[in-house]
Amino acid sequence: MSKTKFRQLTIIGVGLIGGSLARSVRQAGACDEIVGCGRDKNHLQQAVDLGVIDRFEIDVSKAVQGADMVVLATPLGAMESILSTIISQLADDVVVTDVGSVKASVADIARRTLVDRIDCFVPGHPVAGTEQSGVAASFLGLFAGRSVILTPLDETSDNALQRVRELWSCSGATISETTVDHHDKILAATSHLPHLLAYTLVDTLANMDDSEEIFRYAAGGFRDFTRIASSDPVMWRDICGANKTAILDVLERYESQLKILKKMLSEDKVDDAIEIFSRAKKVRDRLVVKE
Amino acid sequence: MSKTKFRQLTIIGVGLIGGSLARSVRQAGACDEIVGCGRDKNHLQQAVDLGVIDRFEIDVSKAVQGADMVVLATPLGAMESILSTIISQLADDVVVTDVGSVKASVADIARRTLVDRIDCFVPGHPVAGTEQSGVAASFLGLFAGRSVILTPLDETSDNALQRVRELWSCSGATISETTVDHHDKILAATSHLPHLLAYTLVDTLANMDDSEEIFRYAAGGFRDFTRIASSDPVMWRDICGANKTAILDVLERYESQLKILKKMLSEDKVDDAIEIFSRAKKVRDRLVVKE
Repeated sequence: MSKTKFRQLTIIGVGLIGGSLARSVRQAGACDEIVGCGRDKNHLQQAVDLGVIDRFEIDVSKAVQGADMVVLATPLGAMESILSTIISQLADDVVVTDVGSVKASVADIARRTLVDRIDCFVPGHPVAGTEQSGVAASFLGLFAGRSVILTPLDETSDNALQRVRELWSCSGATISETTVDHHDKILAATSHLPHLLAYTLVDTLANMDDSEEIFRYAAGGFRDFTRIASSDPVMWRDICGANKTAILDVLERYESQLKILKKMLSEDKVDDAIEIFSRAKKVRDRLVVKE
Repeated sequence: MSKTKFRQLTIIGVGLIGGSLARSVRQAGACDEIVGCGRDKNHLQQAVDLGVIDRFEIDVSKAVQGADMVVLATPLGAMESILSTIISQLADDVVVTDVGSVKASVADIARRTLVDRIDCFVPGHPVAGTEQSGVAASFLGLFAGRSVILTPLDETSDNALQRVRELWSCSGATISETTVDHHDKILAATSHLPHLLAYTLVDTLANMDDSEEIFRYAAGGFRDFTRIASSDPVMWRDICGANKTAILDVLERYESQLKILKKMLSEDKVDDAIEIFSRAKKVRDRLVVKE
């Protein structure tokens, strides 16, 4: 566990991710005080009652005062207004990071809003989550064994990067670094595309005449496959907008591959499909071994 | 539990499904003897050692002798040769059923092979499974709370249907009846299409330049989404071949829906995507409540 104590950790957006990070930091004894911030007082009070945060502020300017670590754990769409509001209130030794699923848009926003304080900013992304939202869904082990990807900017100071590494070291996650663009390309493939495919499947079936019956006969495979279609629509709208290019690129690859399979079916060449299925099974089985 | 005892249950194909059914029937004390049949002696011996079956035969003609209930739990591709082999060995009071994921092709095969004994045949499909295969993966609770869909033919006798209902009543599944065509349409949507989509996703990503890294950063959502891509390729080749028309129909609906979403993204109309995501989330959340 980290020996470095944080004086005050301010988490803006105390939901599944922000709440679970707070729990990890508290468990590690790495912080003197954890301050939560959000728009819903009842929700924040619940976070206090659950022992996730020590106190809360509704006013984001007040929430960051005195903090040496600020984590933005809101949907991507809220970040610009928050950063431009807090910039004047940041302590001299503050480090600011985020947990957004797309990093290029966050980097742009941070450069635009933090201007000459950009050295304190470390874009980050814990690759973990469930389809649940809200602090009540947060839990201590969410990040254990998962990846946290940091995408430091050229402007990011070594100290800021080190501090964010210390923060995440409390969570049991494996911390790695890559570039903003590479992160966005990888995540488009492993996370953003699957979400779109799952949403699309559920919506396609819901539009069919016998949708009631269709869902009645849904087995475990379908439930697992579509679990991510229960994710927060606003968050995913933001992600689609922010990572449009990379998502469209991998979506087109997917469509081409699907066309190949469709052709095999319609031309009665299902034996050729075995190759695709076998290749996929082999790769997927390897993934499980690594779990 | 069923009061009706079966004299001899012969299960052809003692894998995940056949093995789990045998466990249920045994647990319910509904059968005097359970005989397994398959091509692999070691596998069948394992089934005996696990207490799943009482004894086994490699020769399918011998395996069905004396049986009053025969369950075909093999891939679809094996059914025609099995049925044409066993027809001359079936007892007068036998009932034959199967567990195949597509029913129209099974009905055709059964009519062709069983001819004037077709009244003893009840097409069936337990809508349950895991991505695992083999008797070692079978377990007692596999069908509990799941659906078993029976699709009796016009020729199926009331007695045969009743006997198969008694068989499945041991398993804790909810038993329902529908037509062959309706079954195949529903399952194309809830099971066959999702499998094709999952196989295609894994294969698409595996073909990308940085596939190693892509899979390294795969989170829980990806693992759930692609779990079914670990399913048996031969089984799924057979299903694709047997339910081609219904699968292509729902696949086309899916492609159209995906195109709509793609258009929203490329035209920067992500706000419209919220509607799709929200509709899908609502339907998916309802599914979970019913679990």
